[in-house]
Amino acid sequence: MIQISPDTTAHDLIANTIRGLAMDGVQKANSGHPGMPMGTADIATVLWTKFLKYSPNDPLWPDRDRFVLSAGHGSMLLYSLLFLAGFDLSLADIKQFRQWGSITPGHPESHLTPGVETTTGPLGQGVGNAVGMALAERWLSSHFNRPGFEIVDHFTYVIASDGDLMEGLSHEACALAGHLGLGKLIVLYDDNHITIDGPTSLSYSDDVPGRFKAYGWHTQRAKGHDAESIESAIRQAREETSRPSIIACRTHIGYGSPNKQDTASAHGEPLGEEEIRLTKENLGWPLEPKFYVPDEVVNIMGRVGASGEQRQVEWGELYSRYEHVHPDLASEYRQAVESEFPEGWNEGLTDIFEPGATIATRASSGTVLNILSSRIPNLVGGSADLTGSNKTRPKDEKHISKDDFSGRYIHFGIREHGMGSILNGMALHGGLRPFGGTFLVFSDYMRPTIRLAAIMGLPVIYVFTHDSIGLGEDGPTHQPVEQLMSLRLIPNLTVFRPAEATETAIGWQVALRNSHGPTALSLTRQGLPTFDRSRLAPAKNAAHGAYVLSDVDDPAAILMATGSEVQIALEAQALLSERGIGARVVSMPSWELFEAQPIEYRHSVFPPDIRARVSMETGPTLGWERYVGRDGIAIGINRYGASAPYQEIYQNLGLTAEAMAAAVETLVSRNVR
Amino acid sequence: MIQISPDTTAHDLIANTIRGLAMDGVQKANSGHPGMPMGTADIATVLWTKFLKYSPNDPLWPDRDRFVLSAGHGSMLLYSLLFLAGFDLSLADIKQFRQWGSITPGHPESHLTPGVETTTGPLGQGVGNAVGMALAERWLSSHFNRPGFEIVDHFTYVIASDGDLMEGLSHEACALAGHLGLGKLIVLYDDNHITIDGPTSLSYSDDVPGRFKAYGWHTQRAKGHDAESIESAIRQAREETSRPSIIACRTHIGYGSPNKQDTASAHGEPLGEEEIRLTKENLGWPLEPKFYVPDEVVNIMGRVGASGEQRQVEWGELYSRYEHVHPDLASEYRQAVESEFPEGWNEGLTDIFEPGATIATRASSGTVLNILSSRIPNLVGGSADLTGSNKTRPKDEKHISKDDFSGRYIHFGIREHGMGSILNGMALHGGLRPFGGTFLVFSDYMRPTIRLAAIMGLPVIYVFTHDSIGLGEDGPTHQPVEQLMSLRLIPNLTVFRPAEATETAIGWQVALRNSHGPTALSLTRQGLPTFDRSRLAPAKNAAHGAYVLSDVDDPAAILMATGSEVQIALEAQALLSERGIGARVVSMPSWELFEAQPIEYRHSVFPPDIRARVSMETGPTLGWERYVGRDGIAIGINRYGASAPYQEIYQNLGLTAEAMAAAVETLVSRNVR
Repeated sequence: MIQISPDTTAHDLIANTIRGLAMDGVQKANSGHPGMPMGTADIATVLWTKFLKYSPNDPLWPDRDRFVLSAGHGSMLLYSLLFLAGFDLSLADIKQFRQWGSITPGHPESHLTPGVETTTGPLGQGVGNAVGMALAERWLSSHFNRPGFEIVDHFTYVIASDGDLMEGLSHEACALAGHLGLGKLIVLYDDNHITIDGPTSLSYSDDVPGRFKAYGWHTQRAKGHDAESIESAIRQAREETSRPSIIACRTHIGYGSPNKQDTASAHGEPLGEEEIRLTKENLGWPLEPKFYVPDEVVNIMGRVGASGEQRQVEWGELYSRYEHVHPDLASEYRQAVESEFPEGWNEGLTDIFEPGATIATRASSGTVLNILSSRIPNLVGGSADLTGSNKTRPKDEKHISKDDFSGRYIHFGIREHGMGSILNGMALHGGLRPFGGTFLVFSDYMRPTIRLAAIMGLPVIYVFTHDSIGLGEDGPTHQPVEQLMSLRLIPNLTVFRPAEATETAIGWQVALRNSHGPTALSLTRQGLPTFDRSRLAPAKNAAHGAYVLSDVDDPAAILMATGSEVQIALEAQALLSERGIGARVVSMPSWELFEAQPIEYRHSVFPPDIRARVSMETGPTLGWERYVGRDGIAIGINRYGASAPYQEIYQNLGLTAEAMAAAVETLVSRNVR
Repeated sequence: MIQISPDTTAHDLIANTIRGLAMDGVQKANSGHPGMPMGTADIATVLWTKFLKYSPNDPLWPDRDRFVLSAGHGSMLLYSLLFLAGFDLSLADIKQFRQWGSITPGHPESHLTPGVETTTGPLGQGVGNAVGMALAERWLSSHFNRPGFEIVDHFTYVIASDGDLMEGLSHEACALAGHLGLGKLIVLYDDNHITIDGPTSLSYSDDVPGRFKAYGWHTQRAKGHDAESIESAIRQAREETSRPSIIACRTHIGYGSPNKQDTASAHGEPLGEEEIRLTKENLGWPLEPKFYVPDEVVNIMGRVGASGEQRQVEWGELYSRYEHVHPDLASEYRQAVESEFPEGWNEGLTDIFEPGATIATRASSGTVLNILSSRIPNLVGGSADLTGSNKTRPKDEKHISKDDFSGRYIHFGIREHGMGSILNGMALHGGLRPFGGTFLVFSDYMRPTIRLAAIMGLPVIYVFTHDSIGLGEDGPTHQPVEQLMSLRLIPNLTVFRPAEATETAIGWQVALRNSHGPTALSLTRQGLPTFDRSRLAPAKNAAHGAYVLSDVDDPAAILMATGSEVQIALEAQALLSERGIGARVVSMPSWELFEAQPIEYRHSVFPPDIRARVSMETGPTLGWERYVGRDGIAIGINRYGASAPYQEIYQNLGLTAEAMAAAVETLVSRNVR
């Protein structure tokens, strides 16, 4: 029977406890990634015992340090740390690793597990999120701190793998972090020379510090299994306040395993009972019990946790004084952190547009955003270098820069994926309500981040403009076709494609009210006539997702459309009326909102007995069968667009009122009702 | 009236001709990007007159140098060059810039315009494509060249913008290019300090040469309007054969425009008639005629083109000797370049699997790939660091490395987006048949490249494994849900999701036969029983996209499914049979293939009068209404997955044979037929 040597340092005790939990947890699940936790246990131990500011009883304390495990496959590292640190995650939870209903899933999920700051696994995302968190911290500290009242003052730490840094996302996010001088961001790079396919030399020969130096980062190297080397490097990184820091920590994946250390086989599968035995022997660790946690580790981690709680108490006292000395700021801070909007934030938004005036929905979006921005102080966002096109910059709003975070506008650069991941990080951090813009077609570049926002339930707002062939001359590479329906497929994303200005105002309200998931606004480049609501249904009905915009007595058919095609449906309705056919027009800005309505409402919009239905949208017809049914006709674009003035494209691709009217006539002549 | 000064150099004549064409073309279209062509005219002139190897009469000459305009918005630069160089693009075409049906669309489209090597516009893609082209050149030269017979020997040149280099894609592709030492890749960086939003200082402070040095590149700086500086730098870049080169050329966007040079307003809109006048005056260029091309420019470019044609003639002579001395190699080379497969390449592929044996489709894919790889010598591909999981590595196949390109396997690293763009470049180059693998969920990371492959009609093959909740414990971040239907939405992409091993073999044949667009194979992690084709329809029917797998007399209902859910449909059929209900089972591996079948065939699979239809797929139900109709029931997953053993997830999310049978019973009890 192995006894732990009495000379074992506290550091080694904790690190080996983590290694033991990781090995045993993965083995019990018969699935998972032991090598990464074993390799980074030393780094994590130093960070969590010497530096990280956290309060186990209040994982949402706003001024905690953020810890991001970007290499999310090493989830057992994070679960072990949370358990040892006293968060609400038990040894029983660890034993339920990767089981149905557990809070210890295969990859960390922030909406599930207390203390998990972000959902990671898709590589690069944690790094991008961390940049967003550090940006949020910097913005909030710049906005709310006052001399003697550093109420926002915390670090963002990341453990990142080779994979995180190979991903292009890390380039985008880290270049911007360097540009903005996010000095309280510290990345610990798990430089273990191994990926799934084998040694990194198969595919990777970046000089990582050199690369980050080129981004304006502070760079260091450390010995990843030498506590002093790690501690010294973190200390220096914290002292460097004007630049983000990366520490390349040379580690060994599967550290301690006689046969699997430094091999890819330690990466993604259990070590096996025999190798676990050999590893524990090698580390001087008891073979039994499994999931062994020495009392001394419990004691040490308890003291660390208690000191964190004490820091939170002190912060609470500081904050109380702040409330007293700076009541207005404190009130704004509280509102920001609790995601509340000032009263009256959405008043009169639909009334500002002149009926009949022609205005692109991207422009009406800009107008609405101007107003919202003046009313909601923590609305912070930007564009991936399409500011003028996306109309995302509120009037006279300053942009943030390395030396000045007093503005609220972010020039994200030509970095859509980075923007998406940073927006997620800002939302995760809390205190800000983030939005970002690009062309709808480039939503493809940031799609993984939209999905993650939806998984995590983050209230991020996307301003996707130039949303169809209606952008005209830029041609097929810039004309979205399949993007809109593809976004509708993402669970928990709300897509909103307004038909004109007043629906756009409703879209922004929907987006800001959506606190449990992201919202994508799909907006035109081209001008659209603002509806005369005295003759049509009120704009507020758009909040139901779909509504009867214009009706007739006993309609023989339903015309349905979204966005820029709704006006075409109205024209088709007029054509049909001339031809003696009465048709209802339904505007459908948001399928998700509509599908959340009660069945009675849905049937009132689409009475089941009206089967002559025609839809139009500048995208694939696939999906529209849901509403037109097998008897109806969907008009769309099952090809790529073309470069030409947009009116010609609409005409040549058959997206016309006449086509819609003709389709109804066909159905009526077939006696479809 | 302005006369061109007689002292004007040939270089300046050509460069200013390009500037004039760009200004006039954009102005005439009243849309476009004049600043970039004006800024890079000097670089392009040096490249196209002093270095680039091309033959205007044969834009597809295999040994031409490749020229990639990654900053595709500067399309007028490329069109001007192609016109001046004597390609099949006339001044009339230039005057039709951005008009319906022209060969001069807003962004360059390779399938449309002779001499355009790749479709660009979405930033970063051209750079990635160029890496693929240079990789292909290196592979082909390594494979086919023999002493004295350098039949493959050309450079790949790129003009890249700030935007290209900000995009994460450039990180992924260029890091791999450095790792592989692609010495004949030369990137000319248009370092103009301006993006759409304004000065690059708003968002960008990378030390670009420093960054590329960290990737192992050869780096230089040049004066972007000094022909000698540019020429000298390109010469040195060509001499550096072991590393790719980047030349940061300091340029001025809108060069020559008194009021718009060095401003964002030169980027994306016409200069305006007045500013064009001022610019032409400033450049010493005649105001009239518009689209002015001096005779001397025609003469010089004619001589350059003729010398290129002469080089092609010499290459043809060399190749004739090569055919004589190395007939087998020459035959293989011809077959590769003409995208032909050796006879018998697909024989017996469906016969190799044992009925009833359980095998994941990713594994049967690996088995099929082994055989195909042994028969098709130019099948070259890899995985984004999931080799063992994707089963993409043919048995005993060597991987390529900096020093050895004799293998056919590529470790792309954790770079899905880079992989996709490189695969496109390989396909564009010609001579190789490329494939690449990752998890289906990470198709999101490379989605922009899939779309571009589809736009360009490139025969790229994607091996997307772990294609559902069936991957189990890795959980929601790794379980695709919406990806499959999202891929179906991409025009001209063929998606194929086989139900088991023999359908997988058909899928590979479909993919390899698809010469006009990309194909995505969607494959399981989990084992699936191989169908006993003596009791079911033959596997070859899967090539129709959907087929009746198992039938009954006078079916009362249709059960339809794809991939791993087809076996569940078969189980449901058995359950229903016990309950006295006869149901047909339709396997639908590829909607695109099915929808291309004649209506008679489609009706034979889905007779319109059988309306009791139930589908099952591990994805959203949206889209399935196309086949189940308004009366049917789609069983799917309209949420994210979960981390657990996969059988439990299927069970808990209701994807069971019992659920399918119950749905049919519901329909039958409603008298839906």
